[in-house]
Amino acid sequence: MNCELLVEGAAVLSLDPEWRIFEPGYVAIKSGAIVGIGPGAEARRWEPARRLGGADSLVMPGFVNTHTHVSMAAFRGASEDVEDRLARFIFPLEKRLVKRDLVREAALFCLVEMAKSGTTTFADMYYFEDEVAAAAKRAGLRCLLGETIVDFAAPDAAEAYGGLDYGLRFIEDFRGDPLVTPCLAPHAPYTVDAEHLSLVARESARLGLPWMMHVAETLPEARRFGASHGSTVKYLDSIGALGPGLLAAHAIYVDDADVEILARRDVSIAHCPASNAKSGRSIAPVWKYREAGLRCGLATDGPISGNGMDMQGIVGLYPKLQKVLTGRRDLVTAREALRAATLGGAETLGMGALTGSLETGKRGDLIIVSIDDFNLRPVYDWYATAVYAMRPHNVRSVLVDGRLVVDEGRMTGIDEAECLERMRGISESCRGEIARILGERS
Amino acid sequence: MNCELLVEGAAVLSLDPEWRIFEPGYVAIKSGAIVGIGPGAEARRWEPARRLGGADSLVMPGFVNTHTHVSMAAFRGASEDVEDRLARFIFPLEKRLVKRDLVREAALFCLVEMAKSGTTTFADMYYFEDEVAAAAKRAGLRCLLGETIVDFAAPDAAEAYGGLDYGLRFIEDFRGDPLVTPCLAPHAPYTVDAEHLSLVARESARLGLPWMMHVAETLPEARRFGASHGSTVKYLDSIGALGPGLLAAHAIYVDDADVEILARRDVSIAHCPASNAKSGRSIAPVWKYREAGLRCGLATDGPISGNGMDMQGIVGLYPKLQKVLTGRRDLVTAREALRAATLGGAETLGMGALTGSLETGKRGDLIIVSIDDFNLRPVYDWYATAVYAMRPHNVRSVLVDGRLVVDEGRMTGIDEAECLERMRGISESCRGEIARILGERS
Repeated sequence: MNCELLVEGAAVLSLDPEWRIFEPGYVAIKSGAIVGIGPGAEARRWEPARRLGGADSLVMPGFVNTHTHVSMAAFRGASEDVEDRLARFIFPLEKRLVKRDLVREAALFCLVEMAKSGTTTFADMYYFEDEVAAAAKRAGLRCLLGETIVDFAAPDAAEAYGGLDYGLRFIEDFRGDPLVTPCLAPHAPYTVDAEHLSLVARESARLGLPWMMHVAETLPEARRFGASHGSTVKYLDSIGALGPGLLAAHAIYVDDADVEILARRDVSIAHCPASNAKSGRSIAPVWKYREAGLRCGLATDGPISGNGMDMQGIVGLYPKLQKVLTGRRDLVTAREALRAATLGGAETLGMGALTGSLETGKRGDLIIVSIDDFNLRPVYDWYATAVYAMRPHNVRSVLVDGRLVVDEGRMTGIDEAECLERMRGISESCRGEIARILGERS
Repeated sequence: MNCELLVEGAAVLSLDPEWRIFEPGYVAIKSGAIVGIGPGAEARRWEPARRLGGADSLVMPGFVNTHTHVSMAAFRGASEDVEDRLARFIFPLEKRLVKRDLVREAALFCLVEMAKSGTTTFADMYYFEDEVAAAAKRAGLRCLLGETIVDFAAPDAAEAYGGLDYGLRFIEDFRGDPLVTPCLAPHAPYTVDAEHLSLVARESARLGLPWMMHVAETLPEARRFGASHGSTVKYLDSIGALGPGLLAAHAIYVDDADVEILARRDVSIAHCPASNAKSGRSIAPVWKYREAGLRCGLATDGPISGNGMDMQGIVGLYPKLQKVLTGRRDLVTAREALRAATLGGAETLGMGALTGSLETGKRGDLIIVSIDDFNLRPVYDWYATAVYAMRPHNVRSVLVDGRLVVDEGRMTGIDEAECLERMRGISESCRGEIARILGERS
């Protein structure tokens, strides 16, 4: 049988419902889709146009990063260790510096880091998401992109809630795109009023699209809605904002009743362990979400929050923090962690049937990892290797929709030197304003 | 003036008492020592035999990893997510599999991962430490090596406490070595009795050497000494085991009185955040240790515990977990974290005058980091870049004692392909026994 690509590996981790691992194994790809997967001995039935991987390779689904603000790469490393950073630093900074060009160029830069470290799908929320969409299409990554809606004038909207109209136009422009799924992204329960939240929930349901929001992320938010409604989750439930379309990022400050409400409303969770820890927040009780049957994915958050955008920095942190939270070493196994970073994430974006595992009929989204490196050997347990030992540089090649996005460590569709040079220009143009705002606020 | 090496960088982070950063800057090295450091404009006074670094480089002290068991690289990834892993799995495994050859070969393998990711100094405890010393000298790394002492027959000693004699011979053989400092390493308060602990403390003081031990690492230990003496630390204090020579690894289960005792006795702390979290333990209150003036370093722990051996996976985790523990975003700044991973670590090993910062008169232990990469740019704060954004592959070259140990990403003194091949042999020879023990214990 003919196929375009035959990817072979010492191991192929399918992440399918039977957790099949083929040692060695192969994946065959045709017209962007997986048309075959199985033991290496059966690879010879395929006649491929091109062969990838080999005996020194681990083949697995690409990572799914369920919550990012990729364009904030322009500000990475500014204003570290500052309390109340969002209001004191980030909002003023964005007001002055975030323009259409910066969003596109910084997004493209950030997507290179993400793609080269093995992320094939991401979910983003920011301003000018049509520009992030353009960058994602150029980089070749799959994505769910949410246009931000807030109750004040934003970089891409002169009036409060202008993001709603911007977002609806963005959705119109990109619906049906093979890689980009556009949607709406109200910023948070404390920056978007009940009326607009209900409107977003209704509009999204009407359009058959997911929507995303920061939920129960900060202590002031938890205190405010705790006083008025018992908790942020109870407040959102009271206004009809919770449903299977909502991708809730963070979801840290919840009680057991909230977990039950989120489960009953079939909400999805984007867990951001590095960002939450770096901000001095609590550890989100993801193990409870999983026990309650919620869809949970993992995420870096933005480059100013994490600050690394590789999922290797997240997939091993997730089980570690859940073990700290519970005192249980057996909780969140390496296998469960890898599922959260791949298929679990795809499910939270409404893309579980499309990507996240290696199964016939799914799209060809996978990564090829070089295993002959000093940080990976020996291998007794592929899941432990992938979750705890793998580092970004071990990722050699990346396929999205059957297309080689990273080939032997280099982006195929992007001039990397030019992209680095443009970030140099962006950061030089931002440096003065950043110093000024830090000075004003300190 | 003549020098052997002139290392130039867009930035040189000195980590000296004034926190000087030279942008650009240089470091001059002669006879293994730093003979000059300063702004780039002054570099021209030097006539070097060789130039390193350049405008795309960050130059900083090498990482100091204060607690490892490098030879356990042979077992990395085996028995993940298992409760009571030490007694159920690791001790039986070591009894059957740990031999002199395995210790040397697995140590050498592990040191490649560590050196290539920028570690210049490490502290290790295991069996056959003379073999670890041989590996360290071959790799070219600086180290403090402690021979393990336990109250049962060990791989290198047929009788209980045989490690003490082994260790004293090891010390005799390696005292005065320019790279290797030998010492004693009783395993833990629950595997070494009071008599032998006191003996080790006295012998070490007599020899003028530090000694190292796992302290207050596990809950059963905390319960046992909590019942008998109030806490592990109070027990150790009651038998005279605490003093400035002790490098205490972990030190998790302590109360405020224990912190005060440790400070009064001038003990050093090796903090292992990844290992502790992955084991489902609590977060050691390192911020309290620092407020009490204790010397604190960071560590990976062994490759079966972390599982990565790069300090990039530790230096960013340390502030994150302290922020989670306290709820304070401003606590443990990026600068403080980088100090803990370099000079702070050197101080805990009694090597603060020798290494850990870039100052005239100190040994030439430094790393050159390529900064033109997508995970590092832009740079607004060098400390944030080094702590939160740097990944192992960004390290380009590594100097220890003025000698180029890693040159443009390759080990200078080790055949990497042969080293990988030997680990393949080791893991194949271990695989059956590991499966058997896991089967017996499950």
